[in-house]
Amino acid sequence: MQHLQILWPDSIDIREVSPRDGLQAEPQILPTEQKVELIKKLGQAGLRRIEAASFVHPKWLPQMADAEEVMRQIPRSANIRYSVLVPNLAGLERALGTKPDEITVFVSASETHNRKNVNRSIEESVEGFKTIVSRSHVSGVEVSAVIVTAFGCPYEGAVPVSRILDLIDQFQGMGIRQVTLGDTVGTANPRQVYHTIKTIYNRFPDIMLGLHFHDNRGTALANMLAAISAGATYFDTALGGIGGSPFSPGAGGNLATEDLVYILEESGISTRVELSSLIATGDLLEQWIGHELPSRVHRARGRMVPVSGERQE
Amino acid sequence: MQHLQILWPDSIDIREVSPRDGLQAEPQILPTEQKVELIKKLGQAGLRRIEAASFVHPKWLPQMADAEEVMRQIPRSANIRYSVLVPNLAGLERALGTKPDEITVFVSASETHNRKNVNRSIEESVEGFKTIVSRSHVSGVEVSAVIVTAFGCPYEGAVPVSRILDLIDQFQGMGIRQVTLGDTVGTANPRQVYHTIKTIYNRFPDIMLGLHFHDNRGTALANMLAAISAGATYFDTALGGIGGSPFSPGAGGNLATEDLVYILEESGISTRVELSSLIATGDLLEQWIGHELPSRVHRARGRMVPVSGERQE
Repeated sequence: MQHLQILWPDSIDIREVSPRDGLQAEPQILPTEQKVELIKKLGQAGLRRIEAASFVHPKWLPQMADAEEVMRQIPRSANIRYSVLVPNLAGLERALGTKPDEITVFVSASETHNRKNVNRSIEESVEGFKTIVSRSHVSGVEVSAVIVTAFGCPYEGAVPVSRILDLIDQFQGMGIRQVTLGDTVGTANPRQVYHTIKTIYNRFPDIMLGLHFHDNRGTALANMLAAISAGATYFDTALGGIGGSPFSPGAGGNLATEDLVYILEESGISTRVELSSLIATGDLLEQWIGHELPSRVHRARGRMVPVSGERQE
Repeated sequence: MQHLQILWPDSIDIREVSPRDGLQAEPQILPTEQKVELIKKLGQAGLRRIEAASFVHPKWLPQMADAEEVMRQIPRSANIRYSVLVPNLAGLERALGTKPDEITVFVSASETHNRKNVNRSIEESVEGFKTIVSRSHVSGVEVSAVIVTAFGCPYEGAVPVSRILDLIDQFQGMGIRQVTLGDTVGTANPRQVYHTIKTIYNRFPDIMLGLHFHDNRGTALANMLAAISAGATYFDTALGGIGGSPFSPGAGGNLATEDLVYILEESGISTRVELSSLIATGDLLEQWIGHELPSRVHRARGRMVPVSGERQE
């Protein structure tokens, strides 16, 4: 039996990704005003980092065709950082025009997945980041990177940790300090998560390491617990648990913001997010997208409220 | 920030409760032959402890009216222990006639819940256990106890750990060595689970402590991870995640056997249960009960099988 050191941090930070990673996977395309309303309400619930849009070409991602308009209409505040996803230089030009607080770039940990996702090799993707980072930094915009399929690839299966270390090494070389590991197909397990994160912190003690879990097999919260035990405090979540990459066979919903906020707040770990606001906003989102949200906490309506009264059979 | 010691055990043990705790909550009453087939297939999948029936009076629980017949028809084997639920002396007499390997008694940690569940005070319930234990031991049958609402009550809310310690103390006094804590309404959180279990082991180092988690808020696997970190290795689960007490408002499905087996086996912790057999049996169960199983791993069809081939969009 192995003994491991576990931590309960005092607080964790959430990057809310439903407006981008969530809505891009929905067949129903929301009108701009609903997207803006969603982002506004997420901010009001206490979320201070929100992925607001994607600048992938509308030909590939019609759901995000109004990215400029969304960015123009959302309320700006010193307390909320808006990030946008940028796939290439053309996307960067569009993105920088909208004055985001942060730009996110992405690459797969597996060669096959990267080719199928963006039709480039990993090397070509990372090479492209250099110009994106330098141009963004000139504009005063920070860049963070997401490594997708970091815990397993739908085509190649297992992904060695050495590939993640190698990518992080290259990112740090170009001035990217924030790196998020995506469990794109929801195959990570708690032990793997714990060891991967420990290995990364050993080599890169100053990294701002985020985790982006998918909940296809109901493992996201257990993986999150393993991640905080390994020292992680940054998590991507999506309201209602919507999302999932359309280019990843078997991908399922993101870890639901409600589910993370509920379990951590109950455990005495602060998220600074108000659960009741998330549930009310989830009700709206459910109407807009036209189907039930995967979030269990949404379905349970949040915390238990003790009832008094007669036997309920 | 607090530091805690975590453990990854080499293996854990499952008590499969779908034939009793699962099926008793289903509106569709299965014919005896399907129940027997279910139990047979669960044993073939590798489950070695199966809760096979309940001897609650058929007036209250028509789903279990054929308990004697089920017990008569299931295949007995030295490798499989069958337990049955017993609510009172009348139930005990019926149960002992069916030659179970084990009898399970239950009491709530909260007075209100116990009254609503069995129309007795906690004291009366525990007093009743004494005769059940002595008669069972005379017949060579072991007794294990379940403390329901151990982590929270739908009527009273929070449940102090002292009540659980007090109950365990009384159980040990009458020779009950196995005690299971039920998170009947799915409100336990990982930190509470960890501390409760640690507190119990400190006071009762030799206890065989089981955990019975419900997954209403998607917390069951994270709670299980906290539990194994605190040293627990016995878990109740139900195939497909079916179940939930009909007398507990807000109760939801049990932790799914597939979900537990998947995440632990992926983490290198042995359950001795074959996932593919569980999924095949889940398909049957789904047909029989006539609705989709809550289990996420069932829906995901188990482990990821890497695909090769064209871009899947």
